Amino acid sequence: MFERLASTLDEIAAQVRPLLSQGRVASYIPELATVPAVRFGMAVVSVDGRVFKTGDADQPFSIQSISKLFALLLALQTEGDGVWRRVGREPSGTAFNSLVQLESEQGLPRNPFINAGALAITDILCTRFATPENALVQQLRKLSGNTALDYNLRVANSERRHSDRNAAMAHFMRSFGRMDNPVDRVLDAYCSHCAIEMSCVDLARAVLPLAHHGQLPGSEERLLSASLAKRVNALMLTCGTYDAAGDFAFRVGLPAKSGVGGGIVALIPNVCGLCVWSPGLDANGNSLAGVQALELFTTLTGRSIF
Amino acid sequence: MFERLASTLDEIAAQVRPLLSQGRVASYIPELATVPAVRFGMAVVSVDGRVFKTGDADQPFSIQSISKLFALLLALQTEGDGVWRRVGREPSGTAFNSLVQLESEQGLPRNPFINAGALAITDILCTRFATPENALVQQLRKLSGNTALDYNLRVANSERRHSDRNAAMAHFMRSFGRMDNPVDRVLDAYCSHCAIEMSCVDLARAVLPLAHHGQLPGSEERLLSASLAKRVNALMLTCGTYDAAGDFAFRVGLPAKSGVGGGIVALIPNVCGLCVWSPGLDANGNSLAGVQALELFTTLTGRSIF
Amino acid sequence: MFERLASTLDEIAAQVRPLLSQGRVASYIPELATVPAVRFGMAVVSVDGRVFKTGDADQPFSIQSISKLFALLLALQTEGDGVWRRVGREPSGTAFNSLVQLESEQGLPRNPFINAGALAITDILCTRFATPENALVQQLRKLSGNTALDYNLRVANSERRHSDRNAAMAHFMRSFGRMDNPVDRVLDAYCSHCAIEMSCVDLARAVLPLAHHGQLPGSEERLLSASLAKRVNALMLTCGTYDAAGDFAFRVGLPAKSGVGGGIVALIPNVCGLCVWSPGLDANGNSLAGVQALELFTTLTGRSIF
Amino acid sequence: MFERLASTLDEIAAQVRPLLSQGRVASYIPELATVPAVRFGMAVVSVDGRVFKTGDADQPFSIQSISKLFALLLALQTEGDGVWRRVGREPSGTAFNSLVQLESEQGLPRNPFINAGALAITDILCTRFATPENALVQQLRKLSGNTALDYNLRVANSERRHSDRNAAMAHFMRSFGRMDNPVDRVLDAYCSHCAIEMSCVDLARAVLPLAHHGQLPGSEERLLSASLAKRVNALMLTCGTYDAAGDFAFRVGLPAKSGVGGGIVALIPNVCGLCVWSPGLDANGNSLAGVQALELFTTLTGRSIF
Repeated sequence: MFERLASTLDEIAAQVRPLLSQGRVASYIPELATVPAVRFGMAVVSVDGRVFKTGDADQPFSIQSISKLFALLLALQTEGDGVWRRVGREPSGTAFNSLVQLESEQGLPRNPFINAGALAITDILCTRFATPENALVQQLRKLSGNTALDYNLRVANSERRHSDRNAAMAHFMRSFGRMDNPVDRVLDAYCSHCAIEMSCVDLARAVLPLAHHGQLPGSEERLLSASLAKRVNALMLTCGTYDAAGDFAFRVGLPAKSGVGGGIVALIPNVCGLCVWSPGLDANGNSLAGVQALELFTTLTGRSIF
Repeated sequence: MFERLASTLDEIAAQVRPLLSQGRVASYIPELATVPAVRFGMAVVSVDGRVFKTGDADQPFSIQSISKLFALLLALQTEGDGVWRRVGREPSGTAFNSLVQLESEQGLPRNPFINAGALAITDILCTRFATPENALVQQLRKLSGNTALDYNLRVANSERRHSDRNAAMAHFMRSFGRMDNPVDRVLDAYCSHCAIEMSCVDLARAVLPLAHHGQLPGSEERLLSASLAKRVNALMLTCGTYDAAGDFAFRVGLPAKSGVGGGIVALIPNVCGLCVWSPGLDANGNSLAGVQALELFTTLTGRSIF
Repeated sequence: MFERLASTLDEIAAQVRPLLSQGRVASYIPELATVPAVRFGMAVVSVDGRVFKTGDADQPFSIQSISKLFALLLALQTEGDGVWRRVGREPSGTAFNSLVQLESEQGLPRNPFINAGALAITDILCTRFATPENALVQQLRKLSGNTALDYNLRVANSERRHSDRNAAMAHFMRSFGRMDNPVDRVLDAYCSHCAIEMSCVDLARAVLPLAHHGQLPGSEERLLSASLAKRVNALMLTCGTYDAAGDFAFRVGLPAKSGVGGGIVALIPNVCGLCVWSPGLDANGNSLAGVQALELFTTLTGRSIF
Repeated sequence: MFERLASTLDEIAAQVRPLLSQGRVASYIPELATVPAVRFGMAVVSVDGRVFKTGDADQPFSIQSISKLFALLLALQTEGDGVWRRVGREPSGTAFNSLVQLESEQGLPRNPFINAGALAITDILCTRFATPENALVQQLRKLSGNTALDYNLRVANSERRHSDRNAAMAHFMRSFGRMDNPVDRVLDAYCSHCAIEMSCVDLARAVLPLAHHGQLPGSEERLLSASLAKRVNALMLTCGTYDAAGDFAFRVGLPAKSGVGGGIVALIPNVCGLCVWSPGLDANGNSLAGVQALELFTTLTGRSIF
């Protein structure tokens, strides 16, 4: 696969170009709405460290919900299986920001990748860390090797000012006794996590432990057990792309996590981490060109987990 | 009806006595949980001002959701039909504090007597009054003739500390653009309204305008139009007693509004205002002995609106 | 009220004329779709038997869901309070033909006026009567004094061919063990009930027992107890006009039951029965001109139950 | 993996033995309730045709919902992507026999593995085949190589007599215009499909095309395209095990389809088909020992797709 990968990536970039203007850039906060839609980057990092990339693969962008994946990994490192007392592992079947299921299931979120679940995970981190946003940034610097990455304070503040829906969820969970920290504290951290900025190359490298039995590539250090790495991959496949996870698995067939900033991180077990970025979104909130690029990738390389 | 009313009320008090120990006193805040269950009071005030009462009819109690009725009247006085842009007029068919319907109906509450609706009404009052809690207290002093009544600050503060579910609703409505004032301000006022303390006699007198074509009895002053008074009565009948309104109409057949403090205010058009109080609640959150007392009242006097 | 009633009814007819062309005639079966929209009739029958009418008040029309009221009365006569083991007494808060609530409430319909509830009532009648459709027709002939009335077989058959939604509900209830007779038998009877044809005068007379303490006017015979008559009135007020019952009570303030044939039957306790007919429907499935006519009636006569 | 597989299977059988008495045998029809709980069989068939087995691996059992997988494959063969106009590809997030989602999504089932979806697939087959039950049996004889397999008429008839919930769904979809054939015809076929009896060895062999790029092993014949085979695998992973698919993917990490007869069929792409059978079910309706056996299998062999 790797010998022809550089040209494969370029071919993908060429093929998705007509789609770049068709998606809709997220506009729920002004700071995201200003990103130009016509951008595309893609990066692949092999488990032995080789980097392949095309387009805007080194351009930092707002990782948004992709942060939910790394917040989960950090919580799993500190809490282990205790995490599953706070969130489930099932697809929700409803919108990522719905409160309906939360009511019938007494404030226990279905999985860590819907907003309610990510707020529960952030609550865990708020208990463990004085400043969970700094802890997550440290972790991502280490995983990506990019020591300069950080969250964008202006974006974080803007998210915070538009966080009524998340505040509703957090208060709702708290009303069921499922929130240990003050809602304001949890929302501050959550919004900062969403505002972290990374490039495709950063993210493709940061997920490598999930493709490599839980180990940091090129080191003896283990981020999490091989078994847990596999399980997080399963969770990404069933719940990682909002309420289009079934269709994404059907079309792409790779564990992945998307964000409304237009990024999608994915991986092939034992082979590589991937990340694609294009800000125009489809109706489900996933990058329109990004999903298409990943589908082309699995078609052209013949690689998927199925 | 009035000639034998004093003895009728005593008979009712005697008949419901065995029920007093069967209800469950509201315990969601510590301050309410300490009220002894075995209390019962009932008052009737005729449109020409005669007072009939039995038991603890002069004992002030926490009016809780009965405040939703008077908050609505105050909002109708200041906004007129503009109020109906903020809340509907239909029974919700779901629990008084459910968020499910609010999600499918984009943050527009079904009626002013469920919590979400009362928060919307409070938001209106927060826009109109610097301190809506004082405005409502003034109004109730005037309607009841009891110039000493007030809200209980300790109860209000306790409600406020346990208001995550209401905070969830308020933030949720705000996320749909349906909340003009800061959530904290609205919750402060809402919790103070719930903590107002009045007696059965106070409340039976305070609803008289609804039984008297919108007029304050014994005066030329009009609180609201005859047509609007009738309409509020209709709303009380269809939506006034949590999600047991249908059963309450079936058994009692009077416009009414209940509160978890154990009070139920009701009225017979052109005849009288009524109020019953007993802190033990049934499964729907209505006073167990209170509902029974009102059913006995309509049976013994042969009066209902049907 | 009665001295000027003839001219009041004519005035109402004149005022609603512009609305006649604005409603939408029911079209879910071809037989109903052919009725001309621009028709209007209204009748009032006093408890002492005087008849007042205007327009097409003697024109028979398809009573449709108004049959649910008379099926309930027949079931109450044969089963008494046993009926309430099969249906509740609460507004549903959802569409008249929704299956959602039925699932969460294990096949027990909220009230006898939504389709699921009427199917449960029909199931009771199927157990009691060899041909419930004939029993209901007999009952309505007696109550209306019109011995010629019957159901329209062509309409009944057409309803039956388009009854998949009702079949879904009936099978669903049966899957919860809440249907004693074969689904096909229940649907046959239900569709025949809907296809009964009566005029405004017939219907205004047929509801008189509900306005007259349960008694048939001009006779010693009692259809049901005074207490039960009042209770059915309460149920009509809270649940009688699809999911617009709250708004109908707010605007009109009378116990009523509507049908998609364009009829609405109503009553003033101790005073009279009423019926209005106009085939054009509003968004809730109630007669557009009919609701307006009833609102005008209560405004012009100053009569409502509130 | 294969060299030690025989002993691995025996080890699994030994380890799950204590669980055999803990599950609950399906009892919604009398014919299933009589199967003894304490049975266990497991079979693995490699893509090159080698068979490994333990316990009751040759005992035929009622495949029940596993038939949904093969009905889907048959529909895909005849209709291609037209199938996706009739069913979605998303996890439902609700119970396999819920009607709630069907109402809000206008009769379009979420995926072909919930009951509503399988009824839609059966409707397709009813249009294509005079007797779809025979067509499916023929197909399964060919895929499994067992020319004697058939459906159990007694079980099929019993299912049919207890099919009110499925009848409700089928009529409901038909009311949305989403059912081409008479409901009775579709239910007859559906119930016969569920009543097909096969052994673990039969089933492990029958799924081999999904593990082998869509090809029948040992032949040039293609059942479906490589791309479609991968996609069906993705669908099994996200939707194959009732509303526990997320947890199953998390624990086992293989595409699978379960049935309330206690069977679970699964596969490892490019490697093998698997089937496990044990009639005692867990709370989600999956074989209790079966899920545990598959989890042990992936742990002991180190094989999963992640």
